[in-house]
Amino acid sequence: MNKPSIAIIGPGRAGSALARALRTSGYVIAAVNGRNPDNARQLAKEVNARPTATAAGALELAELTILAVPDDVIAPLASEIAQSMCASDGKSAVHLSGAQDRAPLASLRAAGVRTGVFHPLQTFRKEPEAVNNIPGSAIGIDADSPLHDLLTRAATDIGGEPFDLSGVDRVRYHAAAVLVANYTVTLLAEAEALAQSAGIGKKRAHDGLLRLLTGTANNLRATTPREALTGPAARGDDSTIQRHLDALASDPTLQQVYALLAQRSRRLKEAI
Amino acid sequence: MNKPSIAIIGPGRAGSALARALRTSGYVIAAVNGRNPDNARQLAKEVNARPTATAAGALELAELTILAVPDDVIAPLASEIAQSMCASDGKSAVHLSGAQDRAPLASLRAAGVRTGVFHPLQTFRKEPEAVNNIPGSAIGIDADSPLHDLLTRAATDIGGEPFDLSGVDRVRYHAAAVLVANYTVTLLAEAEALAQSAGIGKKRAHDGLLRLLTGTANNLRATTPREALTGPAARGDDSTIQRHLDALASDPTLQQVYALLAQRSRRLKEAI
Repeated sequence: MNKPSIAIIGPGRAGSALARALRTSGYVIAAVNGRNPDNARQLAKEVNARPTATAAGALELAELTILAVPDDVIAPLASEIAQSMCASDGKSAVHLSGAQDRAPLASLRAAGVRTGVFHPLQTFRKEPEAVNNIPGSAIGIDADSPLHDLLTRAATDIGGEPFDLSGVDRVRYHAAAVLVANYTVTLLAEAEALAQSAGIGKKRAHDGLLRLLTGTANNLRATTPREALTGPAARGDDSTIQRHLDALASDPTLQQVYALLAQRSRRLKEAI
Repeated sequence: MNKPSIAIIGPGRAGSALARALRTSGYVIAAVNGRNPDNARQLAKEVNARPTATAAGALELAELTILAVPDDVIAPLASEIAQSMCASDGKSAVHLSGAQDRAPLASLRAAGVRTGVFHPLQTFRKEPEAVNNIPGSAIGIDADSPLHDLLTRAATDIGGEPFDLSGVDRVRYHAAAVLVANYTVTLLAEAEALAQSAGIGKKRAHDGLLRLLTGTANNLRATTPREALTGPAARGDDSTIQRHLDALASDPTLQQVYALLAQRSRRLKEAI
């Protein structure tokens, strides 16, 4: 299977990380397009691609076009490309959203373009180091063959772990990703603020609690969440939980977050 | 400053990890004691220490005794040792609890033993690899000099980042650690169950979401939680949040956890 030439539309966090990873893995990045021409030019220069004036122009230059744009932009962008492109022979287009199936690409499909979903179950920084998050990441794929095979190969080539997203309830799947990626960040932020209010310096609170988060993730590599869970809720130490809740009385919302997560933690530990 | 000889009372997760780390760093582990004689003997053998029949016997053999026991055992154990030990000259004893100050060691202090707190802000697996979580971990210290200096040196020797716990509100500090260490595990468990209910296989859900958690922690090394936060709450994408909440309607508690964390995420993003 030959490696298809790639167009990236949307030089943001995910689009940039994928462009870099694919190029490093031997793919030719033929074109980059974006709403902000400067960002598109900059990424294009870095991955030796042509910046294009239009999204359809990017699709014309490549076999596989990646729409790395916000969820609500996918459908209008696909429609715009479908209306202005010249030929669809041998063209494929995918989006990167975990929350959407292939429906927002329907206008491209109707115009003869093969469509699919390529969802890295990962979160990326803006900086070039973001590409380091890709190896080992699960990458959900939804497409008909032969595009499915081609995307599976691309996922593997960049060090990802491809899996099939067809038939998966995207809303529940996406909510699961949000719980882990977004709400862990929020828990850390709340914990940092709490530690500071306890008398710990800002940098010490961030560095120390982030190292604790990393240690927690380390522990989970070789065990299940249920086995990895420690702390007062796992031990059934109600008096410590009550002391924590009392200390959070000045912030009823955070107190409620703590109480609910203590309840779920105990439930996890007691599950058979 | 000479390295003090060490006694470990409580060969559990934290006690074992510290015994291994201290020995690797050139400390002599003189004694190990524990309620379960087999566990104590096994750790003693590994770190070339003497297993002792009593906790007081362990303290007699070492300059620095580490009480690596559950919070509610610290005070009775300290009292038991104080009553049966022969001499306190040059002896120090610390506990590892982040939730307690030096008060539970009062009976040892009254008997002439220097007392302190040595709290690794970290979570440890049972397995020997747990020792790998120590380097880079913040280690909170509360003691009068010269014990404070000695503990600071020991924390540094094992690769930790010592900081001063005196004057810190232990309840809020400990609650912060629980939010990060325990409730991140619980969020991951909830997300894994949710992804499975969406149609993802069990191992793929665990591996994929754990890699997402690791990527999230990676991102936070070079940025603040506020900057690292992405997702629907950070974007103010209320329709996606509502779809997630609808999908969680069959589990009102988890739905409430999601709603509260979405609210806190938005608050974090909007903070000035």
